[in-house]
Amino acid sequence: MKKSKVTIHDISKALGINSSTVSRALNDSSSISTKTKQRILEKATELGYQRNSLASNLRTNKTNTIGVIVPRLSRNFFSSVISGIEETAYEAGYNVVICQSLESLQREKKIINSLLSNRVDGVLISISMETTSCEHLMAYKNHGGPIVFYDRPCDFEDCSSVSINDYEASFEATEYLILNGCKNIVHFSGPQVLALYRNRKKGYMDALKKHGLIFNEANCFESMLLKKDGIEHAKQVLKLKGVDGIYSANDTAAISAIQYLKNQGVNIPEDIAVIGFNDDPISTVIEPALTTINQPDFKMGKIASSLLIDQIKDHKTERDSVVLSSELVVRDSTKKATR
Amino acid sequence: MKKSKVTIHDISKALGINSSTVSRALNDSSSISTKTKQRILEKATELGYQRNSLASNLRTNKTNTIGVIVPRLSRNFFSSVISGIEETAYEAGYNVVICQSLESLQREKKIINSLLSNRVDGVLISISMETTSCEHLMAYKNHGGPIVFYDRPCDFEDCSSVSINDYEASFEATEYLILNGCKNIVHFSGPQVLALYRNRKKGYMDALKKHGLIFNEANCFESMLLKKDGIEHAKQVLKLKGVDGIYSANDTAAISAIQYLKNQGVNIPEDIAVIGFNDDPISTVIEPALTTINQPDFKMGKIASSLLIDQIKDHKTERDSVVLSSELVVRDSTKKATR
Repeated sequence: MKKSKVTIHDISKALGINSSTVSRALNDSSSISTKTKQRILEKATELGYQRNSLASNLRTNKTNTIGVIVPRLSRNFFSSVISGIEETAYEAGYNVVICQSLESLQREKKIINSLLSNRVDGVLISISMETTSCEHLMAYKNHGGPIVFYDRPCDFEDCSSVSINDYEASFEATEYLILNGCKNIVHFSGPQVLALYRNRKKGYMDALKKHGLIFNEANCFESMLLKKDGIEHAKQVLKLKGVDGIYSANDTAAISAIQYLKNQGVNIPEDIAVIGFNDDPISTVIEPALTTINQPDFKMGKIASSLLIDQIKDHKTERDSVVLSSELVVRDSTKKATR
Repeated sequence: MKKSKVTIHDISKALGINSSTVSRALNDSSSISTKTKQRILEKATELGYQRNSLASNLRTNKTNTIGVIVPRLSRNFFSSVISGIEETAYEAGYNVVICQSLESLQREKKIINSLLSNRVDGVLISISMETTSCEHLMAYKNHGGPIVFYDRPCDFEDCSSVSINDYEASFEATEYLILNGCKNIVHFSGPQVLALYRNRKKGYMDALKKHGLIFNEANCFESMLLKKDGIEHAKQVLKLKGVDGIYSANDTAAISAIQYLKNQGVNIPEDIAVIGFNDDPISTVIEPALTTINQPDFKMGKIASSLLIDQIKDHKTERDSVVLSSELVVRDSTKKATR
């Protein structure tokens, strides 16, 4: 900030209106006529006047800004959630600043400190894959700033959360493979430190159990579910022999696995049927198109945003755990001839 | 912010150390021993003490935060640029807050005001497709905050920019289609208000000219290059008859066009060869895999971030226009048998 700042006195001088009138106009006081306000605002804009909102924030302790912590911006799911968050926030007059943890706990800690320093009015967070405890959120919480979890809830200080029913979605996907004739299904799972991935694995296990299939830990491959992980898991699948179904806890790993398996001469879905999770746009581009689970991402963002804003405004403290339902989208990657 | 704040006096009381020592320790004064600082910091953390950085910012006029304005988070290109920006910024001790314009000028105006109010130390911006003039950045600039453009430069107040040579990349892509036997090439172009898309169109036109092919305005379809636009353009391509090549200014539209054309029985690349732009991960998933232009997105972010930080630190004002080169990545969507 180099140039000398335009002050209320500069506006006052330029218009020949006294400073206190200018000040009241800029604070939208009802004692000043609309016409005068208009004149003063126009001159203020022309001169490049900017209210010092830091000083103003100090007084009101409000920044009208929501901080969003997102694990990975490149995932379509998260960018859709953010669109939902923004829509609700902008309507309510809040700005949104987004920070990316890149699945790193260390980065997440830095971000939360920075958001606290910048006094955002509330935080929406989906924790990183490395985050096993939410103690680092305590400093923010201690200052009374509300926190709402989205997608990846964390059992922390009665904070609200919005997520989907991962267990049910997973159960349904696995059962769908079984009903289509699969008898030897492997599961690509995410880090078990996250409740979300534990629930997805549990749904898979219980569906097997219900249909009399034996659960085998060797059929579960745990990773960060990146593109390279899908390829690694596909290699292991081929070593296992006799696998006829894959249920992956995300689309990214499902798709790179399909690409690898096709290159090895495996027919999808005839030899191995595949189901992913998220319904990324890419799942309609892969051939065969991927059967997957569609989550209400945009809606999740809207609800999380709205819960947070309610807490900011009303200082509400009750805990809401919103669980949204998802939908199995059947495409060609599971269309086997009935056996 | 509800609970009463922990003050320096609380720390002082808890440790039996006088307040001014606590204050100097928290300001990392050299007059306090490392051991005492350590003790005070630990107690401060334990009690949930947070320096009031708003007050501190007011004094130093620094927030150590960079604001990034991005048109659309869901585009892989932009999320990679952001990763580059963050890497350099975090190394230099700056935090990064990201705001999404969703290609809307109105949203862009709101964001710039919010970033100004929050006194971010500098702004990195890729302007929206609706932005024809950058006058709305003037208020920020007037306060001496540096602005650096990335990907979509704007001729504004001697601001630095980092972009790629869109003209050359486009010329090369079009020429590649011609050298592979295409004689009737259409171009899917983005909004011509942006220099970037004007340059891409110019490169296309000049390559046709060099090879004695006639440029026809009716062969250029302008849109926001969304998925639905690609489908619309593909329909028009079929109506034109005799088209044997498509050069699209992004991958999204190229890929939805390929999907539509394949469904209509068109062979890609035998009937129509296709080249996209961006090298999104999806371009290796579509069949045939898409020939496209790879931009140094991560590098672009790193350079933009580093230019901005230099300006924040040194109050440098010289204008840098960094133009990076891109690379044509040849895949199956252009592999015609030589005619």
